[in-house]
Amino acid sequence: MPNTPKSFTLKELAKLVDAQLVGDPDTVVSSCAPIATAQSHQLSFWDNAKSIAPLNTTQAGVVILTREMAKSYRGACLLVINPALAFAKIAKAFVLSPVEDRGIHPSACVADSAKIDESAYIGPFVVVSEECVIGKNTVIHARVTLYPQTEVGDDVVIHSGCVIGADGFGNVLDEMNHWHAMPQLGAVIIKNKVTIGANTTIDCGALEDTIIEEGVRLDNQIQIAHNVHIGAHTAVAGCVGIAGSAKIGRHCMIGGGSCIAGHIELTDGVVVTGMSMITSSIKSPGVYSSGTGQMPTRAWHKSVVRFRQLDEMAKRVKQLERATDESNDD
Amino acid sequence: MPNTPKSFTLKELAKLVDAQLVGDPDTVVSSCAPIATAQSHQLSFWDNAKSIAPLNTTQAGVVILTREMAKSYRGACLLVINPALAFAKIAKAFVLSPVEDRGIHPSACVADSAKIDESAYIGPFVVVSEECVIGKNTVIHARVTLYPQTEVGDDVVIHSGCVIGADGFGNVLDEMNHWHAMPQLGAVIIKNKVTIGANTTIDCGALEDTIIEEGVRLDNQIQIAHNVHIGAHTAVAGCVGIAGSAKIGRHCMIGGGSCIAGHIELTDGVVVTGMSMITSSIKSPGVYSSGTGQMPTRAWHKSVVRFRQLDEMAKRVKQLERATDESNDD
Amino acid sequence: MPNTPKSFTLKELAKLVDAQLVGDPDTVVSSCAPIATAQSHQLSFWDNAKSIAPLNTTQAGVVILTREMAKSYRGACLLVINPALAFAKIAKAFVLSPVEDRGIHPSACVADSAKIDESAYIGPFVVVSEECVIGKNTVIHARVTLYPQTEVGDDVVIHSGCVIGADGFGNVLDEMNHWHAMPQLGAVIIKNKVTIGANTTIDCGALEDTIIEEGVRLDNQIQIAHNVHIGAHTAVAGCVGIAGSAKIGRHCMIGGGSCIAGHIELTDGVVVTGMSMITSSIKSPGVYSSGTGQMPTRAWHKSVVRFRQLDEMAKRVKQLERATDESNDD
Repeated sequence: MPNTPKSFTLKELAKLVDAQLVGDPDTVVSSCAPIATAQSHQLSFWDNAKSIAPLNTTQAGVVILTREMAKSYRGACLLVINPALAFAKIAKAFVLSPVEDRGIHPSACVADSAKIDESAYIGPFVVVSEECVIGKNTVIHARVTLYPQTEVGDDVVIHSGCVIGADGFGNVLDEMNHWHAMPQLGAVIIKNKVTIGANTTIDCGALEDTIIEEGVRLDNQIQIAHNVHIGAHTAVAGCVGIAGSAKIGRHCMIGGGSCIAGHIELTDGVVVTGMSMITSSIKSPGVYSSGTGQMPTRAWHKSVVRFRQLDEMAKRVKQLERATDESNDD
Repeated sequence: MPNTPKSFTLKELAKLVDAQLVGDPDTVVSSCAPIATAQSHQLSFWDNAKSIAPLNTTQAGVVILTREMAKSYRGACLLVINPALAFAKIAKAFVLSPVEDRGIHPSACVADSAKIDESAYIGPFVVVSEECVIGKNTVIHARVTLYPQTEVGDDVVIHSGCVIGADGFGNVLDEMNHWHAMPQLGAVIIKNKVTIGANTTIDCGALEDTIIEEGVRLDNQIQIAHNVHIGAHTAVAGCVGIAGSAKIGRHCMIGGGSCIAGHIELTDGVVVTGMSMITSSIKSPGVYSSGTGQMPTRAWHKSVVRFRQLDEMAKRVKQLERATDESNDD
Repeated sequence: MPNTPKSFTLKELAKLVDAQLVGDPDTVVSSCAPIATAQSHQLSFWDNAKSIAPLNTTQAGVVILTREMAKSYRGACLLVINPALAFAKIAKAFVLSPVEDRGIHPSACVADSAKIDESAYIGPFVVVSEECVIGKNTVIHARVTLYPQTEVGDDVVIHSGCVIGADGFGNVLDEMNHWHAMPQLGAVIIKNKVTIGANTTIDCGALEDTIIEEGVRLDNQIQIAHNVHIGAHTAVAGCVGIAGSAKIGRHCMIGGGSCIAGHIELTDGVVVTGMSMITSSIKSPGVYSSGTGQMPTRAWHKSVVRFRQLDEMAKRVKQLERATDESNDD
């Protein structure tokens, strides 16, 4: 999205984020930039106390800093407790929305029975099916499909390509070992202030609903199966798959490419590192991982062979210990 | 999809699934619900013989059970051999189709040369390209793309966001190490009674066709590369990737997030657990896995370091065994 | 895409790829086929010097071969240095483009401020947002979304379902541990001769741009996060996830299903095998892997248990070595 040629004085920006201003209140900045490349007409921020070198060389017109870090900086600055958060708020003021602020794009396909708040925006080629509900200030970007009875709260953002409410993957075998679809009768409920990245899919529940609680952040290309429940303020990175009826707690963080098995439960505050395979419930908050680290392939092949023999090797070690004990007893 | 206010008598339902009815044939139920929450106007089912507790407390108006399990239940019930399958059939009767039953949505983009059976349904913003063929009672949900010459059989369901028949990933290096696309001249053939989940992609074949056999179930966000062949009645869970020319047998089950390497073959009846990496052919039916289980990250780091040293450790164990043998020989 | 009934003489084909022709220059072929099934009216190629058996049995009208391999073949052939590359060029001549060659499909939604070269093709239901730029001969297939300010070079192919330029996954926690979106102010820049597979997503940069250099090949369902930089002529297979600010070198090959962590760098010429987890920078060209190979699940469970105990086992082996040393010292 464009970094538009809007202009703000430092005084205006200080007021916007309730910051203490150090420097000329009438200085004007007209866009945002990283600390390393920002010029005198640009605003930046820095919050890495371990590396203050960029502050010595930056050309930024103004930098958002903590009071502590400002001691190392001689230029104009805005002093706040959380520089990244203040920067997020200010940067928002520089953004020209990529879409009209509100209303339904004429190309969208909206069912008569759908209820869409008039402050919401519905982009091109979006499909809003029967009995969907869309809340205030919600933005549905181009080419999203909402299946029937999907409920979307206020201040939600759904990016292009998402499919919300398609049938869950419920199948039953008959006596010939042929699959029959189990009708998926639940809905998807997305609470307020959720954001959903591009091409993410969330299936409807089988009998009850799939629920995404308030403030959840979902990245791109995530698959959320039927009857999953994601607790408030949890963040899920790209390419994660969450299988049916899994329950993820509040304030969790799930690393990219991870898979969460079906019917398990992660308590509040669980962090899963990238590409982990989570196959059983996690009852204590903390950081969890699986997998092996990268290796040159030639060496890796040897480790993989040994991995297959691990149980046998463990038994041989046990045997050696017994032999050594006996030998010591002699 | 909605659980609509249709009503059925138990007599009607018993007839629908050829069940023996225990209870008042004129009792009316108007929707489906899980055993734990079902009320007196609702139908449920139970087939877990190991845990009959829910039968003691359910408020369901009628429960579908096996004859054996019904011995533990005093309420109204429908007796069948396969309760889940009977429930699937009955639940279908409660479903209000989310789309018109048949016909082509006026917003769809359909090539003149495409042949679409008049009983099929084509949703909004669907693209049906030149020379595609779509069979009887097939449902193509909103926002699906069928590239030229895609053949879709009867009773197929394709969910929103799918792309069928895009170019396979075939590239050739020239003398400058620059890539050239190998034209992809094959098609995709999808046989009868296949279901395909949201945002799944199936590439066309390079020279011959990519083929999905009858009764296959594909979940969401699956990637199927060129010239893959998936045998009849195989089920593939979400986020699976199947590389070029892989051949999957009949009645296989592939767990979510798994990847199948190119040019390998899985025989009939292979089960792959979630997030497995399958890099060589599997010739015997059975259950296969790869990866490591989840661990607290701090402990995991130690295991990862040791995994890298596994071959060396195996050699040291061998050395110890030799030393012990010699010592015993002394 | 269809293998159309166009016809070429061998003389015409030899000229097209600058090949030496062995056989009757007036022989006509009308389509391409694999060596094993090609008939007398068809062209094929073979470049596997280790297995020349197919050359003994093929019915192909003409085969593209190296001069060396042609010694084992008695039929008509086209002699070139790189048979696969010559075949790619010839096969292209047989392809009937699945879309109109150029122009904007009437159903596409194109912003007035977008600049689209007149030789480009924009398919049905494509969204081209404000200030996008699209170069010469570029093909955007049906149902692609380009967010504002996306730049697409010449000779680029973007397959159906792609979303280019959606917001990167940048979030900041406030004092209540609630997430706030960091505005994503950068763009996506796609250089010349890039191809992008179906349903792939590329996020816009946070402050600077996400860049895909010339000649890069991206397969289906790839997720590329904000500020990623992919070097020229790198190929990325399906279902790969590349996290924010990762930098991939030139002429790399990333296997399907792999994940690349954020803020790391892969030097030029790195090959990553399928489903690898790359969590640290790679400074030397070569082949890298992670994970464990597939095993029957019952045996795998035992290895997984032992993997958790690896550090302890390593310490026990060390202990045994000490004991043996002491014993030898006795």
